[in-house]
Amino acid sequence: MAKLILSLSFILLFSFTLALREGSWQQGECHLSRINAREPTFRLEAEGGVTEFWDHTNDEFQCAGVSIHRHRINPRGLVLPAYHNAPVLVYVVRGRGTLGYLISGCPETFESSQESQQEYYEERGEEGRSHIFRDKHQKVREIRQGYVFAIPAGAAHWTYNNGEEELVTVAVQDVANYANQLDRTPRSFYLAGNPLRGQQQQEGRPREQRGLPEFGNVFRGFKVRPLSEAFRVDEETARLLRGENDTRGHIIRAEQGIQFVSPTLREEYGRREGQYGRGEGPYYTRDNGIEETICTAEIKENLDKPSRADIYNPRAGRFSTLNSLTLPILRFIRLSAARGVLYRDAIMAPHWFLNAHSAIYFTRGECRMQIVNHLGQAVFDGQVREGQVIVVPQNFAAVKQAGEQGCEWIEFNTNDNAMMNTLSGRTSAFRAMPVDVIANAYQISREQAERLKYSRRETLLFSGSSSRYERGRVASA
Amino acid sequence: MAKLILSLSFILLFSFTLALREGSWQQGECHLSRINAREPTFRLEAEGGVTEFWDHTNDEFQCAGVSIHRHRINPRGLVLPAYHNAPVLVYVVRGRGTLGYLISGCPETFESSQESQQEYYEERGEEGRSHIFRDKHQKVREIRQGYVFAIPAGAAHWTYNNGEEELVTVAVQDVANYANQLDRTPRSFYLAGNPLRGQQQQEGRPREQRGLPEFGNVFRGFKVRPLSEAFRVDEETARLLRGENDTRGHIIRAEQGIQFVSPTLREEYGRREGQYGRGEGPYYTRDNGIEETICTAEIKENLDKPSRADIYNPRAGRFSTLNSLTLPILRFIRLSAARGVLYRDAIMAPHWFLNAHSAIYFTRGECRMQIVNHLGQAVFDGQVREGQVIVVPQNFAAVKQAGEQGCEWIEFNTNDNAMMNTLSGRTSAFRAMPVDVIANAYQISREQAERLKYSRRETLLFSGSSSRYERGRVASA
Amino acid sequence: MAKLILSLSFILLFSFTLALREGSWQQGECHLSRINAREPTFRLEAEGGVTEFWDHTNDEFQCAGVSIHRHRINPRGLVLPAYHNAPVLVYVVRGRGTLGYLISGCPETFESSQESQQEYYEERGEEGRSHIFRDKHQKVREIRQGYVFAIPAGAAHWTYNNGEEELVTVAVQDVANYANQLDRTPRSFYLAGNPLRGQQQQEGRPREQRGLPEFGNVFRGFKVRPLSEAFRVDEETARLLRGENDTRGHIIRAEQGIQFVSPTLREEYGRREGQYGRGEGPYYTRDNGIEETICTAEIKENLDKPSRADIYNPRAGRFSTLNSLTLPILRFIRLSAARGVLYRDAIMAPHWFLNAHSAIYFTRGECRMQIVNHLGQAVFDGQVREGQVIVVPQNFAAVKQAGEQGCEWIEFNTNDNAMMNTLSGRTSAFRAMPVDVIANAYQISREQAERLKYSRRETLLFSGSSSRYERGRVASA
Repeated sequence: MAKLILSLSFILLFSFTLALREGSWQQGECHLSRINAREPTFRLEAEGGVTEFWDHTNDEFQCAGVSIHRHRINPRGLVLPAYHNAPVLVYVVRGRGTLGYLISGCPETFESSQESQQEYYEERGEEGRSHIFRDKHQKVREIRQGYVFAIPAGAAHWTYNNGEEELVTVAVQDVANYANQLDRTPRSFYLAGNPLRGQQQQEGRPREQRGLPEFGNVFRGFKVRPLSEAFRVDEETARLLRGENDTRGHIIRAEQGIQFVSPTLREEYGRREGQYGRGEGPYYTRDNGIEETICTAEIKENLDKPSRADIYNPRAGRFSTLNSLTLPILRFIRLSAARGVLYRDAIMAPHWFLNAHSAIYFTRGECRMQIVNHLGQAVFDGQVREGQVIVVPQNFAAVKQAGEQGCEWIEFNTNDNAMMNTLSGRTSAFRAMPVDVIANAYQISREQAERLKYSRRETLLFSGSSSRYERGRVASA
Repeated sequence: MAKLILSLSFILLFSFTLALREGSWQQGECHLSRINAREPTFRLEAEGGVTEFWDHTNDEFQCAGVSIHRHRINPRGLVLPAYHNAPVLVYVVRGRGTLGYLISGCPETFESSQESQQEYYEERGEEGRSHIFRDKHQKVREIRQGYVFAIPAGAAHWTYNNGEEELVTVAVQDVANYANQLDRTPRSFYLAGNPLRGQQQQEGRPREQRGLPEFGNVFRGFKVRPLSEAFRVDEETARLLRGENDTRGHIIRAEQGIQFVSPTLREEYGRREGQYGRGEGPYYTRDNGIEETICTAEIKENLDKPSRADIYNPRAGRFSTLNSLTLPILRFIRLSAARGVLYRDAIMAPHWFLNAHSAIYFTRGECRMQIVNHLGQAVFDGQVREGQVIVVPQNFAAVKQAGEQGCEWIEFNTNDNAMMNTLSGRTSAFRAMPVDVIANAYQISREQAERLKYSRRETLLFSGSSSRYERGRVASA
Repeated sequence: MAKLILSLSFILLFSFTLALREGSWQQGECHLSRINAREPTFRLEAEGGVTEFWDHTNDEFQCAGVSIHRHRINPRGLVLPAYHNAPVLVYVVRGRGTLGYLISGCPETFESSQESQQEYYEERGEEGRSHIFRDKHQKVREIRQGYVFAIPAGAAHWTYNNGEEELVTVAVQDVANYANQLDRTPRSFYLAGNPLRGQQQQEGRPREQRGLPEFGNVFRGFKVRPLSEAFRVDEETARLLRGENDTRGHIIRAEQGIQFVSPTLREEYGRREGQYGRGEGPYYTRDNGIEETICTAEIKENLDKPSRADIYNPRAGRFSTLNSLTLPILRFIRLSAARGVLYRDAIMAPHWFLNAHSAIYFTRGECRMQIVNHLGQAVFDGQVREGQVIVVPQNFAAVKQAGEQGCEWIEFNTNDNAMMNTLSGRTSAFRAMPVDVIANAYQISREQAERLKYSRRETLLFSGSSSRYERGRVASA
């Protein structure tokens, strides 16, 4: 018996020693023998919409150090202002809305002029109170399907659905980012409301919520009196900051809609935007130094415009990349994105990223994917569908082929200038090699080596089976 | 029985798996449900002074990756030359002294001219030996109460109290800094003496010293013969480098005082500083390339001068920041500092740092502080006093209110350009939001929202209770 | 019995808790009480050569985050194309060869002109097939004994021995590098062949191979059909990419040799290199943005040329450094190198690196080394010989003295601008200190202090024992 125990203990010791060694690696554990196409596992319902979370404790998310969630915001829904402990990159899957940044010390450049304000309130029949609603605030940005926008670590922001249909966004929070000096738990610091609706907030979270990011309203932790003093308001108002009896959750519904100063709104109301531009220009004054990096930075770009494509093959699809050369704030948050569209049966060349993990969200259709690790093992070989996420770790090789309906995706890469190498096609690694090296490496004739090197003449996106390709060429000729 | 064992094993396995998952985070564990105002827990006495260490294994220091100590150096006390495995940022709490850097390859720009040297030794009555004491050495810097100075990882330095009163410095060593490629144990490599006075140095440290940084005299590890050869001195002298019988500890007392070439000394002796400047100018020649980054860098600045304040409110206090824009070497060591002074009852706006932890040392008075985490929990709510340290982790929200005597502090931030967001006041996140967003977020009227947004017109530092504020305004009007 | 089990469990719990605390440091565990001079522990034989691996799980390699291997490539041996999950810095110990980079999107700048190609094949008597072998490929680089070359993380490359003797290279893979976002396991992704010759590839590796880097042919994980489509070749050819029946291993032998377009080859064949330069100049066109950083970067330099020395002492030896100022790609991969040559009995000054670990490979002779940690403990004190590797962790102090035959080495430093401080000699830390500080620190007279400071007048490399030195001086006078 004692022997049994000892040997058990030995096994324990042994396996734990191993586990420790494995577990003590710096950048998370990336010994993945299997990767899965993942769907969200948590739903957080609220008055104005719902947020779905992917379980960030899954192996591949741990390896990549990312946490992913999807907001579904109803019309007139407002995601309460919050900030995160890591940079966030967001793609607008559907709908339109307004995004507001809250950066201390940035100038309030959206200002209602006396005149325009009057006009505005005349429309709403509230002329008499125009002295009250002379508001000014920081720049707000219109977002729309196909936009990617970037949020630095710690930067508070709110999102409002000002459209007629659901606003759906998918976001990746890069907790392994250099900008996150806390641990790798994804955290959201809300500045209002009662995100978990009060139940578990004070007692810590139950086991079944492991894998869900952690969050709460930071005002809840402050006593009422200092808040009242800090804001110079009565204690009743200060108490409301803490959202104690708020049952609306983290996305609220603005029954009357939300009004703010915006060139966009004016545009909607049929007025000229004219000299206002995008809130840039003479409004920007030097204040405390940080607005040079943050306040004036462009934070969004439309990646869906077909004309924006970096690679386009009329028989295969298109590929648009967004990196720090095109959107400089990405240099600061060290993330980048790419939008891919593959037509029916088309192939994205086998490739690997030199310097980034890739978290891919599929926005339409179905793809067949294979992902291979350094041991030459297929860690994934299967279908991925609209609404699923798959992670391709750095250096792992991957290939995609679109199904019957084609396939579209947005990929978030953990480097502001993610570099991709392809294995076949016009700009591939094979093209870099002398024919003789190929012939010797694969024990084939020079003729075969030439075919391997030169047969596929397209770049990154390949038309489907060769027969169809030939037909396509004839047709287009 | 076997069942029991198995279930025990299961429990073990289970709990370790959890523990591993928690323990495998990259940047240290920041799941803090409680933060404390800390005082030093270790004292290291020496002939010329004493050093007090905060226990760097406390949760909040582990989270922030910093280790803090305070030197109290008696007049004529010399902290022996040493270097650390991480950058250090130091604030001079009291007294005055001289700081010497030892950077290999930097030119020895402080040189006694024949003439001035003679004069100097005439004063001390040692004319006959002027050929011996024609010394030259690298730049030394005068430090004084209110100065902050920066020491890169691995850069050896010594500190000498050349004043009449105790020289007190408080230092933060950023072991989580990119420049530390060793593990997170704070280490000091002394170049002289017998810092631990011999007892434990060879046997490793006893358990009761966990939490104390580790250090020793590196010469101790070298054999005498190679030292004698490397310095081309006799073995007796070489043996003294190892400090074996030295019982003075890490701060020694220079009975006769220490003399060196210095424009400051001359200034003290009533001579003109004139063309020597701060050791810059024609002395600097290109030597081996590193002095461009290190040798000529300014490493200190006086943060105490009231006229240096970045934010000043005559009814509340002042706030002075030191970042890489004002002291470029901070870009290299990726730390910054700020000095805060709050008058009686004044409030520092509720705020959070976007990109830095903050370790705050209180230099005078008493403050009431609240610190809130992402779950909306108050992890600290209490008083902090002169001589205590408190850590505010990245993104955690904090508010300070001075007590009867006011309150002053120095804060060290783990980013060379720490960015702060405030929740109330003229440059706050609330000012950034449209009134309508505030009204909807907190379920309040537009009037209340306007008050929340606009009532507090000051920036960062707020005068105390509103009644007093009103009075103050009347008085100053 | 139950007690026994409980106490056992307690012990387990206890020891694991300790282990976790120690094991949870961010940058690897550097509590080294002992460092060893290491020789390779694994041999991987292949048709065209052999690779020897140092066990990367040894404590000092873990601390430094490096993995080291040595290729011995026979004439006409080709190391199959592969990429790694971390940057690699390589030194050519012996022989000569050709290095090919495969960077997607870089232009194929080595192009056989019609004319020169014909001439070339005329020589080989294959004129009739010149239409087939009109090849173009990316720049290839000639390497030779004494060259250091750099390979970014994820960049595929191949190496070919085009000389008459064995080509020996030693490489350090910096798995702790920022560019590796996977964990710290050294991984190699081969693009051809069957590196492990099939045995263990699919089942995972046996225990006895722990410490060996992990690798395999990535094509093995792809199904044949998508490969055939991606390359537009028949399935038979596609199947050969997977190298299933290839028994040659990771270094193959090209029986006929390998031919490619190269100014070097032409040079060998006695033709003018002339306007072609090193593949630079008009060939480079802007394509996709990445070639600005990678495609046109110089990646190699000859560190062996005596005239290249940065420090030279005719009585002691020479020292040549390679950092990002001399080879800019090193800024990107954050590594640097230095080549040291010590003559008989000469000494390299006691020194430490401020900001880097150092992995030293000895290329000739024998040295006596001492390495000291922060506690003043000698963690190494012994001989190191040709073919051994020793790691000097950041900030640890080290001294070298050559034996009878002198001693030569290449050192790889984990910083692109590794900064060294010496303790003795003309540019040492001691020179930086005023004589009075030295006298007080070591309790010696000013005369002794002066000797410590000024006796050794050489820089970094010191001639041997003082008697011999004196004789040397007389001789050279």
